[in-house]
Amino acid sequence: MDADLLILNAAHLLTCASPDGPKRGAALADPGLIHDGAVACLAGQIVAVGPTSEVLAQIDEPDAAVIIDARGKVVTPGFVDPHTHALWAGDRASEFELRIAGATYLEIMHAGGGIMNTVRATRAASLDDLIDETLLRLDMMLMHGTTTAEIKTGYGLDTATELKMLDAIRVLDEQHPMDLVPTFLGAHAVPAEYTGRTDDYVDLVVNEMLPAIGDLRYIVETPDGEYNIRAADFCDVFCEVGAFDVAQSRRILEAAKEMGLSLKIHADEFEPLGGTSLAVELGAVSADHLVCTTDEQLQALAASDTIAVSLPGTPFGLAHSHYTNARRLIDLGGALALASDLNPGTSWCESMQFIIALACRALKLTPAEAINAATINAAYALSLGEYLGSLEVGKQADIIVLDIPDYRHLGYRYGTNLVETVVKRGQVV
Amino acid sequence: MDADLLILNAAHLLTCASPDGPKRGAALADPGLIHDGAVACLAGQIVAVGPTSEVLAQIDEPDAAVIIDARGKVVTPGFVDPHTHALWAGDRASEFELRIAGATYLEIMHAGGGIMNTVRATRAASLDDLIDETLLRLDMMLMHGTTTAEIKTGYGLDTATELKMLDAIRVLDEQHPMDLVPTFLGAHAVPAEYTGRTDDYVDLVVNEMLPAIGDLRYIVETPDGEYNIRAADFCDVFCEVGAFDVAQSRRILEAAKEMGLSLKIHADEFEPLGGTSLAVELGAVSADHLVCTTDEQLQALAASDTIAVSLPGTPFGLAHSHYTNARRLIDLGGALALASDLNPGTSWCESMQFIIALACRALKLTPAEAINAATINAAYALSLGEYLGSLEVGKQADIIVLDIPDYRHLGYRYGTNLVETVVKRGQVV
Repeated sequence: MDADLLILNAAHLLTCASPDGPKRGAALADPGLIHDGAVACLAGQIVAVGPTSEVLAQIDEPDAAVIIDARGKVVTPGFVDPHTHALWAGDRASEFELRIAGATYLEIMHAGGGIMNTVRATRAASLDDLIDETLLRLDMMLMHGTTTAEIKTGYGLDTATELKMLDAIRVLDEQHPMDLVPTFLGAHAVPAEYTGRTDDYVDLVVNEMLPAIGDLRYIVETPDGEYNIRAADFCDVFCEVGAFDVAQSRRILEAAKEMGLSLKIHADEFEPLGGTSLAVELGAVSADHLVCTTDEQLQALAASDTIAVSLPGTPFGLAHSHYTNARRLIDLGGALALASDLNPGTSWCESMQFIIALACRALKLTPAEAINAATINAAYALSLGEYLGSLEVGKQADIIVLDIPDYRHLGYRYGTNLVETVVKRGQVV
Repeated sequence: MDADLLILNAAHLLTCASPDGPKRGAALADPGLIHDGAVACLAGQIVAVGPTSEVLAQIDEPDAAVIIDARGKVVTPGFVDPHTHALWAGDRASEFELRIAGATYLEIMHAGGGIMNTVRATRAASLDDLIDETLLRLDMMLMHGTTTAEIKTGYGLDTATELKMLDAIRVLDEQHPMDLVPTFLGAHAVPAEYTGRTDDYVDLVVNEMLPAIGDLRYIVETPDGEYNIRAADFCDVFCEVGAFDVAQSRRILEAAKEMGLSLKIHADEFEPLGGTSLAVELGAVSADHLVCTTDEQLQALAASDTIAVSLPGTPFGLAHSHYTNARRLIDLGGALALASDLNPGTSWCESMQFIIALACRALKLTPAEAINAATINAAYALSLGEYLGSLEVGKQADIIVLDIPDYRHLGYRYGTNLVETVVKRGQVV
């Protein structure tokens, strides 16, 4: 067999393999550890993975390939970040100071700050400026090992700016090595001009934004021909006190589902409003945040096909002490994923390595559990688990090499970048 | 006036100036912010600092200097990390997994793990291996903006290995751009061979180790001639249940003081044992950790010249929720510094940027307070406040340029490296 890229001799190679769906419950503890591991790639796909000697025995001309010697190092799948708001203009450093002095997230939001601050900056920004500011963050994410990420709209909150954000995600996906998954989050907050008229804003989302997005297709040219792709893969709603209640969330998500969009929900971040039940009922691909979820709803979630996405960076960013009850979800047999929630208000952190380290401490995950949650399960949280998120033959060659002698250093060490080499679709970036 | 390095046009330049001692109480909130700021250096020292136009007006031939354009960026003093255990061999990734499963620090220590694990590896390591492993960490610290750091011994716990550690710090200080301050911490733990005989071990520290270290001088050759320097500047003791009680700590520290060493104490990390009072009574330069310090002892500390060094990475690393009551100390007019506590057990984090971000959240410091605590006050915690830690004329040119538009992004953003350029003694490293 041929290969154009070989990564050899890894002290620890983690496959994170889970071919039949996400890792649920106790299965999350198994990272698929191979000692002295190797992976062979051809044309952007993985063609062999296993102990170095076994992989080498399958390759006809190893010397013809680019060879990365990972001796004394760790090789894992690239991280998948399934919940980000990475696209925005401006910053909210001054609000950060207010929060340290004791103002709450919802107080800042009600005073016209918070999300609306970023909405004003994002509406005012040109498409090019929006793209340029975001490229810096995507570079930071990639440098820290994230090879695929979801990006939400939701800093437009009017039809034109929501469409501008989808345009920006499309351009960024073409310009940047990372794969980007677009999510429409028109219902991120009630914009200032609709204060006290939330239902009218829901009308706008359902009657104007969703149809505009549903009709929008991008033509992508590739060497294999032209593709016609949707502007958004997912529709998401911020189901929360002060944002959208369960009935409003349901209206939007049912309309989106009818149009063929997959669903996500911001559920139970600050109050146990019922977003998790709604996610399960509507067959959402993921329910995200889950900080205040009741045990009854955790049980329903664990028994469903909906992935639980925990975002520990958000409580950390807000200096809260309450986190997703991840151990309970795992005990119940649920499927847990991790994401950064990268955003300018509560959690400006591009590094999934830090999210893993935080999850070990705040969610009591072992490094193996956290890594699986940040790779294969995160891929399933984007409906991409069949294509990427693990090192298995036939999958996309998204691979990272970390300059650590033991995979558990991911988690154990924190606050720095341990990734040495990032491979995206078989190319060293 | 001449200059060989000019850093110009910084959106924010923070001087962190405090010429008459550390910043105490409310003064910690003032970072010495200059808009459109510049700093000029000559032969490793700062010769001018202020608004760019004023600095340029003082320089005879600006074009003769290396020029760094910091337009749209932030310039601050290099970070000073006044409490690290950066010198060790091996790692403790497996203990990290045990801790996630619920084992406490003291349980692991009593089971022969913890510090003794690292002691065994450090005793077995050659001087060269010890130096090589540590160099990687020093590089990581420097890359994240730390230009001066303290390093403690204390993974030897026998005379020969404690001396080997001091030799290693000496070599590292010569080889590496960072300034390193050596602290003797023979009383870091009671070694296994002295279990149940703590007083006998204290005898060893007082009667054998301290005299050996007191006699030890290194000859350092410089262009200006030979210097004869002490092997250790400070003596430190881990005053804690399971380590050394107040009487044992006092014996060691009084002996060290008599030999002319300055003092530090690990005080009140897990139990309010009285280390803080001892620090104040003995005139220690710093009392470190201070997680469980009583209000009475905080008052005594705030009224003294002893610097309070908070190490928030340690509770974070241990997933504890209890941190130094820094706001109370500041309200009492105390002098607060921050440090990483970089070590292989509780806090493997080289980044003072992360410590600042954590301190904003866990200690409720503003970014300005945290930056002052990590620069000028940290320098005073090493008795170096007259020489470095701020951007003032006559001080050592230890300067960092951060790729952020507002200094408050230090704190606001976390988990990544925002430092773009590090200048040590006037040289870009």
